Amino acid sequence: MGMIGGGRGAFIGGVHRIAAAMDGQIELVAGALHVDPEIALLSGQDLFLQPERTYRTYHELFEKESQLSADERIDFVSIVTPNHVHFDPARMALENGFHVVCEKPLSFNLDEAKQLQSLVHSNDLVFALTHTYTGYPMIKQARQMLTSGTFGKIRKVVVEYPQGWLSTPIERTGQQQASWRTDPKKSGKAGAVGDIGTHAENLAETITGLKITELCADVTTFVEGRLLDDDANVLIRFDNGAKGVLHCSQISAGEENAINIRVYGETGSLEWHQHDPNTMYVKWLDKPMEVYRTGQPYMGEMAQAHTRVPAGHPEGYLEAFGNIYRDFAKVVQAKIAGETPEPQYLDFPTVDDGVRGMEFIDAVIESGQKNAAWVSLH
Amino acid sequence: MGMIGGGRGAFIGGVHRIAAAMDGQIELVAGALHVDPEIALLSGQDLFLQPERTYRTYHELFEKESQLSADERIDFVSIVTPNHVHFDPARMALENGFHVVCEKPLSFNLDEAKQLQSLVHSNDLVFALTHTYTGYPMIKQARQMLTSGTFGKIRKVVVEYPQGWLSTPIERTGQQQASWRTDPKKSGKAGAVGDIGTHAENLAETITGLKITELCADVTTFVEGRLLDDDANVLIRFDNGAKGVLHCSQISAGEENAINIRVYGETGSLEWHQHDPNTMYVKWLDKPMEVYRTGQPYMGEMAQAHTRVPAGHPEGYLEAFGNIYRDFAKVVQAKIAGETPEPQYLDFPTVDDGVRGMEFIDAVIESGQKNAAWVSLH
Amino acid sequence: MGMIGGGRGAFIGGVHRIAAAMDGQIELVAGALHVDPEIALLSGQDLFLQPERTYRTYHELFEKESQLSADERIDFVSIVTPNHVHFDPARMALENGFHVVCEKPLSFNLDEAKQLQSLVHSNDLVFALTHTYTGYPMIKQARQMLTSGTFGKIRKVVVEYPQGWLSTPIERTGQQQASWRTDPKKSGKAGAVGDIGTHAENLAETITGLKITELCADVTTFVEGRLLDDDANVLIRFDNGAKGVLHCSQISAGEENAINIRVYGETGSLEWHQHDPNTMYVKWLDKPMEVYRTGQPYMGEMAQAHTRVPAGHPEGYLEAFGNIYRDFAKVVQAKIAGETPEPQYLDFPTVDDGVRGMEFIDAVIESGQKNAAWVSLH
Amino acid sequence: MGMIGGGRGAFIGGVHRIAAAMDGQIELVAGALHVDPEIALLSGQDLFLQPERTYRTYHELFEKESQLSADERIDFVSIVTPNHVHFDPARMALENGFHVVCEKPLSFNLDEAKQLQSLVHSNDLVFALTHTYTGYPMIKQARQMLTSGTFGKIRKVVVEYPQGWLSTPIERTGQQQASWRTDPKKSGKAGAVGDIGTHAENLAETITGLKITELCADVTTFVEGRLLDDDANVLIRFDNGAKGVLHCSQISAGEENAINIRVYGETGSLEWHQHDPNTMYVKWLDKPMEVYRTGQPYMGEMAQAHTRVPAGHPEGYLEAFGNIYRDFAKVVQAKIAGETPEPQYLDFPTVDDGVRGMEFIDAVIESGQKNAAWVSLH
Repeated sequence: MGMIGGGRGAFIGGVHRIAAAMDGQIELVAGALHVDPEIALLSGQDLFLQPERTYRTYHELFEKESQLSADERIDFVSIVTPNHVHFDPARMALENGFHVVCEKPLSFNLDEAKQLQSLVHSNDLVFALTHTYTGYPMIKQARQMLTSGTFGKIRKVVVEYPQGWLSTPIERTGQQQASWRTDPKKSGKAGAVGDIGTHAENLAETITGLKITELCADVTTFVEGRLLDDDANVLIRFDNGAKGVLHCSQISAGEENAINIRVYGETGSLEWHQHDPNTMYVKWLDKPMEVYRTGQPYMGEMAQAHTRVPAGHPEGYLEAFGNIYRDFAKVVQAKIAGETPEPQYLDFPTVDDGVRGMEFIDAVIESGQKNAAWVSLH
Repeated sequence: MGMIGGGRGAFIGGVHRIAAAMDGQIELVAGALHVDPEIALLSGQDLFLQPERTYRTYHELFEKESQLSADERIDFVSIVTPNHVHFDPARMALENGFHVVCEKPLSFNLDEAKQLQSLVHSNDLVFALTHTYTGYPMIKQARQMLTSGTFGKIRKVVVEYPQGWLSTPIERTGQQQASWRTDPKKSGKAGAVGDIGTHAENLAETITGLKITELCADVTTFVEGRLLDDDANVLIRFDNGAKGVLHCSQISAGEENAINIRVYGETGSLEWHQHDPNTMYVKWLDKPMEVYRTGQPYMGEMAQAHTRVPAGHPEGYLEAFGNIYRDFAKVVQAKIAGETPEPQYLDFPTVDDGVRGMEFIDAVIESGQKNAAWVSLH
Repeated sequence: MGMIGGGRGAFIGGVHRIAAAMDGQIELVAGALHVDPEIALLSGQDLFLQPERTYRTYHELFEKESQLSADERIDFVSIVTPNHVHFDPARMALENGFHVVCEKPLSFNLDEAKQLQSLVHSNDLVFALTHTYTGYPMIKQARQMLTSGTFGKIRKVVVEYPQGWLSTPIERTGQQQASWRTDPKKSGKAGAVGDIGTHAENLAETITGLKITELCADVTTFVEGRLLDDDANVLIRFDNGAKGVLHCSQISAGEENAINIRVYGETGSLEWHQHDPNTMYVKWLDKPMEVYRTGQPYMGEMAQAHTRVPAGHPEGYLEAFGNIYRDFAKVVQAKIAGETPEPQYLDFPTVDDGVRGMEFIDAVIESGQKNAAWVSLH
Repeated sequence: MGMIGGGRGAFIGGVHRIAAAMDGQIELVAGALHVDPEIALLSGQDLFLQPERTYRTYHELFEKESQLSADERIDFVSIVTPNHVHFDPARMALENGFHVVCEKPLSFNLDEAKQLQSLVHSNDLVFALTHTYTGYPMIKQARQMLTSGTFGKIRKVVVEYPQGWLSTPIERTGQQQASWRTDPKKSGKAGAVGDIGTHAENLAETITGLKITELCADVTTFVEGRLLDDDANVLIRFDNGAKGVLHCSQISAGEENAINIRVYGETGSLEWHQHDPNTMYVKWLDKPMEVYRTGQPYMGEMAQAHTRVPAGHPEGYLEAFGNIYRDFAKVVQAKIAGETPEPQYLDFPTVDDGVRGMEFIDAVIESGQKNAAWVSLH
């Protein structure tokens, strides 16, 4: 694999590298690791990349790698740059026949997203979007239970993503993660809504199998002088008549990455919190709540297929991330070998999820600008 | 004290009696305990009331008790009837000079509520509304911390009250608690919103000291054939610029009385769950979360004044209820003695909270009928 | 009822009064409330006792009350004095035909305990020992499940009672609760072992239906200069071959009343923590853990009979205490009426539990003195 | 690295490979992966090892690898075989100048352990023993706080390791993990005590910096016909006068890997549970309990140095394991380069911990055989 972005000073690039290495299926062999060519080269040294495959720009990466033989060249790139630098390298990758792993949100705006979607489908390439949370085994379990009707018709969904790290204007202190996320030129039209609201939307739609059809969003910037939203409270309605609440925030002082979801059906419900990802609470109308645990024999097939160690050995965020990479790699391998991938590997977020996320961002921001009017989401 | 309602088949009447008895300040000596005069009399026997003070109707109760000497007659009545029978006995009590404890919501509609409010103030009587949850010691603590600026300006409030007991149409099975709560002739215009949404509203406004100024509510009846709402998701805005989410539900399958609240300020936040009422999570931007516990020496004065046993002896719902009765009794005693009550006793919900609750119901229902348009709350 | 001890400066007396008042079955009408006759009288005024039934000593109480008619006189006394003043008033009560509620541990030493046991049985009186924790509804449920073989044969029991309040020598600061508990002249031969170790022993034997047959105890006084133990770690063996660990401590800094128990059988296990008394974790070899909750319809008969409010309304320590008083009162009422009490009321700790507790204290202290040698418990 | 054991049918070998790969410091290039040479070769194919470095036996591995140049040959071996096959390959590795990572317990008996310890020290090689739990960042934090006197002198330690998976005789069903662990020819003299009791011992001594000086153990085999212990309850005493309880069990039905520890000092205490490894409860005599969380800025240096992702991204068992490998690799690299390793990398369990574990096993089993008599641990 090759990596675009993720060099010195980055956070998520290192996460991608661990996730990719974890299962011995993927090797990092090339990179254009930083927007500054000098830092890009130094970052390559840090990672023991061969100098000749440590590129100064992603343009150079695609040019050179394309000229290598199929045996030698990278099979795919990982794009771990800020939002405004997702589209162009992804486009180039797809146009040059490379499969892609890309950070979320998919792109700077919806138009770019649709172009990428179109390229993926027309070129028949594999594209994974790293909505990590859906990589947890317990989320596989939740999806299987909900979509198979375990609780009857779904009535209500409550999905939350509170963070507190942007409670103060740390973007003005030079904190790199905060700076680009609060800069509309780099993040796009949304702040918290794009960065974490899309995770909540993706989680809710993924595990229920439902689609949000309309929403009403109260979008706020609490920190004075900040240019993008840092909080949003959203009423949501689903295509089966279910209703719900989605809220995300980066000014919820004292919260870490407290993404969580509750889904209520006619006869029971489930509840999951990312901070304790191997546990899920399954509640019933007429019998005791059950506590599901990753790795237990009663877990379903999809969860089992995404679990590395027996029950009682906590798996975390990196393993969830690793699941996306492992599944993606397996599908790429099958594609290269001209085989049909096993169904268990086809469960990772794709470019279609990415387009969906951009539609969600558009709808939330539009609703917010109209003083929380209802906006349809197609 | 005298009790109106709360006889055979009732739930909340027994709770009031335990709460009233708990601190040895109050004795039940009279009652009109059921709408059916025969059951009223039998219910009096159950409770060892003297036959001559076991009344067939509340009209009779007020008539007879009024004729007794000040020494003999009841000082106050507790009204524990369904919503549509709050107003008339409360009105009669106030007109006859009796203090009142009344179940929530205050009345059948806002107009009634305002009449009672007017009577309370003009007759200088004491009126307690049993929004029980504010009786918990930890809620006193939360209020004290939030209103004294512990976390800076409040930015966001998330308050939830999910229940699951009305997930199926049990009102059609003759279940008495369900029947009147889903009957618009007895409950008023709101179902879940009136029964538990008002608790959430009262909790949020009580502990923050803020007022909700407008709201946008998606109000739903999920159970087919039910005549009142059983779920509502509400965006809320406060008078200091804070925003939030309030949702209440009686179709959240598998939930008990899971009322909980999170309040976020600029520098920290707190979180409280009624199911574990003696614990509060206090979160900070830059130091470890703290876990406050009822009865500990570090708790504030108001919490201490409403705690009966040292830390480690869990206090529950009945003790919270008892706190309202104890405080009310102390204020009534002071009133009768012509004294000024101690400030620690003046912290129970009053007729003004009741009017507020009815305004909230009106606003939520109106918003719901307008497809979740924003409605102001004065 | 009459009360001995529990006047000004006391803690547990107030708890007894709330517990006794809660269900409207019991009225406090007489008392000898303090070892100092002057304070005894003032304490009586605090509680609105009639002056003529506010006694200066318990001797006076028994003398005078015995002369009253059966209608007038108290039916029973509550003894809430320090350990060294349990025996004599209890003996006098029993000899004068009064039923007794007594604080634990039963007496100053085993010999006294056996004398009381003998008196209770020979005089056919009702005697309740306030091992409060067995009054919780969930403990009734645990007992029912364990003794009916829900988990097969019981193999292992872990019962703990850590407290931290005696981590420093607060008895030297004049703290009244600490003073007598650390004074061998008032507490007897044991400190923590008597005060809270007996609770652990009683809880373990009560819910399993098993008897401890031998134990090996490492008993320690950590706070320099303290005269009694403040920590004990004990290996235990039961009459069915089960084994276990019991430890109690008053120097576990930062702990409140964290009594908890886990019982493991062949096919499953249960776990209960007093700090969250309405929840019990039921674990299985081959299916998800279940979370039992007080007040739910799936709870057994005994638990239901000791629950006052529906699920979701937390019941606490005072209600558990109230259950002992309510059951005791019902049995006394039946006894007075010459009737057989309903079985549901016969589930409170008695003088036999008290003797058992004194045997446990003797065995633990003896083992400790022999450097944790095994000691049999008959 | 080379691996001995860990081929088809094994569990822990895969864990070692993920842990080793995670940080991009270590590559698996050779192996003798199974006791059956044919399976060893097939296992090598599974892992894409080069055929010429896929060895049939570990003897062959050492012979061949020793002949390779320093550049080519492996730097170390990972020994992931059952207990009775730790000693011989470890000995050969050390005699041939290879560094070693070895599974716990170190060896089949104490004599072997001491031989290995001697070889490690005389040959100046690096030896890591995979007591994984001490690799968690929070355990680094606990150690730092406890050994720096945060809570004053340590008084009490409670360490538990309950599992339930051997509640029934699954070793007779052919379950491979169960079979060798219950076979005295493969496991040594101890069952649960060796497999998990040593983890508890290592955790307790590691985080406190104290040494157990004597113990008293009630050792039991509950499952009929089983040849080794499946449960032990142990009283422990430490070299500073602290006391405690250690218990481990494989018949605690319904438990996963619930290893946990509480350490009480004079002014506070801490509590950690492996199932929620990124959380630690820090309790105080006179202020609210604090909840420490991995990745937060207030965490100490050693914890920070062993954390890969920011707070709110749960790290798990594999990351803890990876920490041991990463630290080990860094120290091996420094050794090879003739440099002094950075102190932060010197915090992994070594052969000395392994000898300690074997001494612990001997003492527990001896005590058990003497009906839980006190046995000294040097």
